[in-house]
Amino acid sequence: MWSDLRPIGRHAGSGGYRRYAWTGADADCRAWFREQAEARGLTHEVDRNGNQWAWLGDPAAGDAVVTGSHLDSVPDGGAFDGPLGVVSSFAALDELRRRGVEFAKPLGIVNFGDEEGARFGLACVGSRLAAGHLTVEQAHALTDGDGVTLPRAMEAAGFDPDAIGADPERLDRIGAFVELHVEQGRALDLTGDPVGVASAIWPHGRWRFDFRGQANHAGTTRLADRRDPMLPYAETVLAARREAELAGAVATFGKIAVEPNGVNAIPSLVRGWLDSRAPDQASLDTVVTGITEAARAHAAAHGVDVDTVRESFTPVVEFDHALRDELARILGRDTGLTVPVLGTGAGHDAGILSGRVPTAMLFVRNPTGVSHSPAESADEDDCLAGVSALADVLEGLARA
Amino acid sequence: MWSDLRPIGRHAGSGGYRRYAWTGADADCRAWFREQAEARGLTHEVDRNGNQWAWLGDPAAGDAVVTGSHLDSVPDGGAFDGPLGVVSSFAALDELRRRGVEFAKPLGIVNFGDEEGARFGLACVGSRLAAGHLTVEQAHALTDGDGVTLPRAMEAAGFDPDAIGADPERLDRIGAFVELHVEQGRALDLTGDPVGVASAIWPHGRWRFDFRGQANHAGTTRLADRRDPMLPYAETVLAARREAELAGAVATFGKIAVEPNGVNAIPSLVRGWLDSRAPDQASLDTVVTGITEAARAHAAAHGVDVDTVRESFTPVVEFDHALRDELARILGRDTGLTVPVLGTGAGHDAGILSGRVPTAMLFVRNPTGVSHSPAESADEDDCLAGVSALADVLEGLARA
Repeated sequence: MWSDLRPIGRHAGSGGYRRYAWTGADADCRAWFREQAEARGLTHEVDRNGNQWAWLGDPAAGDAVVTGSHLDSVPDGGAFDGPLGVVSSFAALDELRRRGVEFAKPLGIVNFGDEEGARFGLACVGSRLAAGHLTVEQAHALTDGDGVTLPRAMEAAGFDPDAIGADPERLDRIGAFVELHVEQGRALDLTGDPVGVASAIWPHGRWRFDFRGQANHAGTTRLADRRDPMLPYAETVLAARREAELAGAVATFGKIAVEPNGVNAIPSLVRGWLDSRAPDQASLDTVVTGITEAARAHAAAHGVDVDTVRESFTPVVEFDHALRDELARILGRDTGLTVPVLGTGAGHDAGILSGRVPTAMLFVRNPTGVSHSPAESADEDDCLAGVSALADVLEGLARA
Repeated sequence: MWSDLRPIGRHAGSGGYRRYAWTGADADCRAWFREQAEARGLTHEVDRNGNQWAWLGDPAAGDAVVTGSHLDSVPDGGAFDGPLGVVSSFAALDELRRRGVEFAKPLGIVNFGDEEGARFGLACVGSRLAAGHLTVEQAHALTDGDGVTLPRAMEAAGFDPDAIGADPERLDRIGAFVELHVEQGRALDLTGDPVGVASAIWPHGRWRFDFRGQANHAGTTRLADRRDPMLPYAETVLAARREAELAGAVATFGKIAVEPNGVNAIPSLVRGWLDSRAPDQASLDTVVTGITEAARAHAAAHGVDVDTVRESFTPVVEFDHALRDELARILGRDTGLTVPVLGTGAGHDAGILSGRVPTAMLFVRNPTGVSHSPAESADEDDCLAGVSALADVLEGLARA
């Protein structure tokens, strides 16, 4: 199952994955999902927002137990972020069939579209649309780095962009959603556990800083005459690190766009994107306010204008406590051990759905903590432990 | 003459010019040059390196007087950098014909190809090739941001990339080369003169700094576990400004490439390009050494590797003293005033040729000093003064 998926969208140079929404690599991933569903006799459907579903039993019966994740990637992402949850879902179903489990509820596996937001800059577009967190107008205004709008990209991939939007009937059929994901930090590595249960997702957001100066000749413009936006940008990058350290948070400038981006031209525009997350809202506010004030002060000192736009924001997500405790109980049943419960700085479709559906997450140990990189890894034994845990959970939630 | 050239390669959004080597805009500029030559009964030829020439008289006679500049631009460049020299050359010829001047020597107007290096990262490719400062192998290895090699770009534009290379016969026909250019600083504005003569071009070069860290998830990777190359890049940008200030030089980070360049990914690579220039070699060495040491120290502090590559370098160019003094004499003849002689931080084809051919430059006042920007400007009266000065110089050098 892994072997068919592994080459799709893999970049020969970096060894990382470039599976962006509505591209050829995305279509190949979707074809793979459909094949997996059909090979197991599951009913395959694609909803209006481009999310793929595979059903055992009739979802219209309601109170369905759903698992799954996503198949798209960040630029040069790793093999596990997303796909591990989808592959483990199919593998857990195989395991439950080996166990001869009979299901009292419909069982679904989902592949949410455009989780990473690598192309259009907004994460979890598929689940946000379904949950009504993103309006049709907002989605239609999304544009990729080449100026292609989301509707045009969907059309090119054979989808109808006018059919997207909130899909409450589909979500109301779900009684519980469990997403398995490779851990994107080292908490499980530090506790020595192969699998953990999520407690909450930190509040997090993306802010765009536009520093506007004046393009000029890099060789002939006196330093005193410059309005170089790269200088306040650099100061702001360093301020972000300091503010995050002070608050026990994280803050990252990982994306930049420079105009005109010529070696011998002082830039007219440096646009930097800040990603910041913190354990609680007050800490996040402190960090972002501090960074914004530093940006303003340094921009002013260089005769540069700065505008700040919050591009996305997700408040803290506390996963359903009853479901979380049920998972911990199911997983602790055999071993008598306590399953670690941990917070995470990463956003997930599970976080988006949690406002409408009882939702939980399982994490599989990541020995290096590395994520969003070709070096992302998980041991095979831990992956198998994840499949087994997911099978236990699905059995506990859905068996007859 | 200006009106036909003005719309070519102009970007509607920025108002700046995007005339890059071997593109459609470049071909349109070349067609304009040919039309101007033919409309004046000049012989038009394109040499093996893509430089365009328009001749009055037979260049094979030798000791030719040549003027001209370039028509390509930096990204979102202004209307004057390059084109002012070419337009003024044709206008000066028109003026000399009005004056009824007879020429004892062949008179040439040249449009050098790919002066700005905006596409392939190396400036003055046309003149460097002709002068033998760039080997065929080096030129064939040049690649643009989309991975298109110079040979493929030349072929696509209908040129033979195997024919390029040193062209001593063509350069040996030239007895004097005079390039008129809009000033790219405010020296003439400060002295109150419409036209000046160049003394020297500062030594200058381009250095690429590759900061290599580890791609990772921006939300889940603890600050202590990060190897984020954006942080030492930011420190190096600020160090460059400090070093340049101390040395009376200039240093600019105007171009950057980030991988994977995702909002929620710590970068694996931040590649920054430094452009630095100084009045003398020792100052330039001090600046670049200081910046490189800062880059190494800050990279090490963040667990990041840094490699530095000098991509191009041009030592100080002292223009031909005899020709420079002759120009100052010709231009001072009518007024009795001293014509200002000034150094410049900008590279030019005239600087490349100066090793083989007696070469001089005229600068036209730039009231704001702004260059490599849509806001670059020159007053019409000053442009006309430039044409008149260039006509005087050509008459003084070439009349019968």
